[in-house]
Parts: sequence; structure tokens; C-alpha cells
Amino acid sequence: MNLNKERLKERTKQIEEIIFSYLPKEKGEQKTVIEAMNYSVQAGGKRLRPMLMQETYFMFGGDGESIYPFMAAIEMIHTYSLVHDDLPAMDNDEYRRGKKTTWAQFDECTAILAGDALLNFAFETALKAAKGDHPHILHALSILAAKAGIYGMIGGQTADIEAEKQTEVMDGESLLFIHEHKTAALIQAAMMIGAVMAGASKEETLLIEKCAYNIGIAFQIQDDILDVTSTFDILGKPIGSDEKNHKMTYVSIYGLEKSKEDVERLSEEAISILSSFGRRNLFLEELVKQLINREK
Amino acid sequence: MNLNKERLKERTKQIEEIIFSYLPKEKGEQKTVIEAMNYSVQAGGKRLRPMLMQETYFMFGGDGESIYPFMAAIEMIHTYSLVHDDLPAMDNDEYRRGKKTTWAQFDECTAILAGDALLNFAFETALKAAKGDHPHILHALSILAAKAGIYGMIGGQTADIEAEKQTEVMDGESLLFIHEHKTAALIQAAMMIGAVMAGASKEETLLIEKCAYNIGIAFQIQDDILDVTSTFDILGKPIGSDEKNHKMTYVSIYGLEKSKEDVERLSEEAISILSSFGRRNLFLEELVKQLINREK
Repeated sequence: MNLNKERLKERTKQIEEIIFSYLPKEKGEQKTVIEAMNYSVQAGGKRLRPMLMQETYFMFGGDGESIYPFMAAIEMIHTYSLVHDDLPAMDNDEYRRGKKTTWAQFDECTAILAGDALLNFAFETALKAAKGDHPHILHALSILAAKAGIYGMIGGQTADIEAEKQTEVMDGESLLFIHEHKTAALIQAAMMIGAVMAGASKEETLLIEKCAYNIGIAFQIQDDILDVTSTFDILGKPIGSDEKNHKMTYVSIYGLEKSKEDVERLSEEAISILSSFGRRNLFLEELVKQLINREK
Repeated sequence: MNLNKERLKERTKQIEEIIFSYLPKEKGEQKTVIEAMNYSVQAGGKRLRPMLMQETYFMFGGDGESIYPFMAAIEMIHTYSLVHDDLPAMDNDEYRRGKKTTWAQFDECTAILAGDALLNFAFETALKAAKGDHPHILHALSILAAKAGIYGMIGGQTADIEAEKQTEVMDGESLLFIHEHKTAALIQAAMMIGAVMAGASKEETLLIEKCAYNIGIAFQIQDDILDVTSTFDILGKPIGSDEKNHKMTYVSIYGLEKSKEDVERLSEEAISILSSFGRRNLFLEELVKQLINREK
């Protein structure tokens, strides 16, 4: 199976319909912050995390709507992290995906609140899955909270910011810590929650955690590779920006050849895990391959 | 019973021991953000919300440790809201309770992350109560998430900030919205979670919600009153600051006399609800009286 562009577009649209249905209504005294929340979530993106979540859910035989609130929740958490990352006190970015970032569109204060609100609303939304008293919800919630927090995504973000303050050159170990936490943790949460909510066993969930780790790290290394090998036209943003910003990357530490080898190895391992389960999801396998070997 | 100062001090210490035991260890690559989190939580405060939570829990016959993670969680949420409120882009406060605020002690970027981390860690911590698969945990989590979010505390904060941007004079309705959401919502969460975790009925929990509403609003009106009637020595901060900042308060809208009457009325209603349950908690009743009629 080759991943059809139309099929991917269609799936992305389906995912967005689900996510958007959980967004709060833009009314009341708190209207401004809700507008800023919704602006941020609707600004676009690959919808990678909710898609990986639902496809993993499908793979383990899940077919109900109880995964929907978690799909919305993980995209809200991913979005809040971008909203706060873009702030003047953080990366000070005015544009993302060709659109104004939340603070640039509204103001700093509203962007801080909208980020807080999205993080909180993610948990509110995920708890909506609790309506049916689903047995796996507390487990799924714990995964979400853990992978998003100081021992997950926020931990990686902290290490990244600390590294930028240092004058000494970052080593491979520190860079791996950042990639593991800033990128891989939420991808792990996405796929693990998909598995858990579909009733996967403990062993299966551990294998999915390992698989998602590989996907997350390979995805990030590919990002570093593209910054060197791609062109502005393909990528839609300036290439060589990491080197210009004196940012340590996987490529600058290990070289282009080893980076490509590692993406290949991590990708093969991930696919090998995915294809080892009794029930296969070929769309998921193709999605992972394309993500890792993508050209933009 | 008169609330003994020593007894209150002792209870505050007990509560702090519980809360602090849930704080993360200051180590690893994410050490800085954890230091900032712990600095913020340990900076002091009345520990009002966890105290009201545990006392309500006691009143409904709760006596186990399953309330502990929620006590820590609500104080973390209260703390994160202060950390973000104090930011330069928000209230730009350098000191709180005589200590440097988090961004002034660390930096803006760390304070944003530490606030995010505290909010996320609050849910992680509350989920630790889930170990024993307690039947009321999902309910308690939903209350926490709802009262802390856009239809609770963050909603109030948004309305407050919006009001400051407006040139027109705020009316009583808008002010009440802010007090209801910014202050009362978390006090409601505290007492409702105490009730729910002790196994209170739906009707009892609704009464507690109403009682906590009264406490929250009365507490806030008393704040406005003290800003006019107290002295610098008693309050430990400049008086008349609301008027100086042209901030609309309950007193400026309704006058001092009606404000005092309303505090009295709200307080009496709250105590009357508390004393209506089969099992009474005299410490809680005294605590509420003192909070509302406090001199600082």
C-alpha cells in the first residue's frame, strides 16, 4: 500500500472535524481567551498525534467514540506548548505555518492565558470520555499527564531552553534527552492512549511505547536532516536555520550519514514492532514510513 | 469554640507537610523548572484551599489519605495561577508576600514553564489518588478541571484582564462574574472535592458548592473592604491600592456599608449550610468565620 495523498488529506479532515467539535463556544465574558484558544488549534498542522492515536486504537480493535476526547486533548496539549513556545519571552516567533502566532494575533497576556486554558481544557475534555465509566480512562489520563509534564514534554522544553543559555557545546546525550522529551513523549502518549483505550495488554502497551519512541526520535532527526538537505521551496521555511542559530542538531553532532542511517534503523524497528501484532494496520505503517522519510 | 491561633498554625504546618511531600525532586536535566515550581509552592500562603478541602472531607466522615493528592493538586493550581498572574505581560509584580515572584527570582521564560509545569503536575498528582481505583476519583478530577478552567478560574482571570483594557466603568454584574470565577471557583472545587472524596451525596455536594460560593464571594468582598479600612501595618501591603489603580471594587460600586452587610449575609448563609449537615465540623465553621471577618 502506498499512502495516497487524497486518503491522507481525507483522514486529516476527519480528525479535524473530531477535534474541532470539542472546542469551546466563543461566547461569554471569557470570549477573548476562547477565541485565542480556537484560533491556535485551528491554525493548521499535520494532526499527527491524534491521527497516530486513532490509528493505534484501530489497530488494537478499538472502534468506538470513547477515543475522541483524548484525540482532542492531545492536540490541545500540543497546541498550548506551541502557543507558549512562541511567546516573546521564549522563542519570540511572530509567524508559524504562515499565520500570525497567538501572541502576535492577540497579545502576550491573552496568549499566556490561552495556553493555560488549552492545557486545562485538555484534561476537561479527556475527562468527558469518563461519561461511560470506561475502565481504561484513568490509565489513559495518567499517561497523558505524565508524558506532557516535567518528566515528559515540559522536561524536554526546559532542557532545550537551558541548553540555549549554556556557552559550552551540547553533547549527544543532552540532545537525545531533549528529543526524547520534547518530541517523543507526546507521540508516545498518543499511541499508548490509543492502545490502552482499545484494551491492549500491558506488554502490548510497552511495545507501543518503544515503537512511538523510535518514531518520535526518527521524526526529529529527519527534521534536522531536512534543515540541511532541503530547499526553501520544498520546506516552506528558510533552510540552514539551525546552523545560522548555532543550534546543535543531530546532524551537527553525528554527521549527515550517521543521521540518515539512524533514521533508517529507528524506522525499521518501529515498523517491525507494528507488524508484529496479530492485527495489522497498513495505513498506520505507511503513515509512519512517510512521516519519517518525508521531504518536508 | 474560638479558633486558636496555635491550632491554626499547627494545621497549616500539617497541610504544608502533605503538600510538600508531593513536590518533585530537584534533579535531572529539568532541575531548573522544578526548582522554580517548588520555590513558588513553598513561598508561603494561607493554604486555604487544601485546608477547606480536608476539613470538608473530615466533615463528611473521610479519614484516609486518598484526599492528599487532591490537596496538593489544588494548591499547585492556585500557585500556578499566581506565577502566571505576576508575569511582566500580566500584572508585572516583582514581590508577593515579601518574596520575589517566580519570574523575578528566576526569569520570565522559566516562570512561564514553571506555571505550565505546576498545572500539569497538579493533574499528575491528583491522578496518583487513582492507585486504589477509588470510585469518586473521576468525579473529583472533573470538578478540579472544570473549576480551574475557562468556565472557572481562567474565565475569571480573562474577564478581569478584559475589564482593565476597557475605558468604561465596570458594572456590578461584571465584577461579580470575576469574583465568582477568579476566586470562588477554586474554593468550590476545594470543598466539593473534599465532599465527593468522602462519599457525600449529590444533594450534599450541591449544598457545599453553594456554601463555598458564599465563602469565596465574601472572602473577596472582605479583601476589597480591607483595602479601604485597614492600615499598612496590619495588612503588610499598601492600602488604598485599588483606588490608586482605578480598579473597580465591590466597595467602589456598592459602598462600604452594603459591602459589610453582604459579607455578613453571605457568611451567615455559609455557616447555616455547614451546620445543617448531620455531622458538624466546628473547626471548619470557625475557620470560615475567621476567613470572612479577617483583619488582614
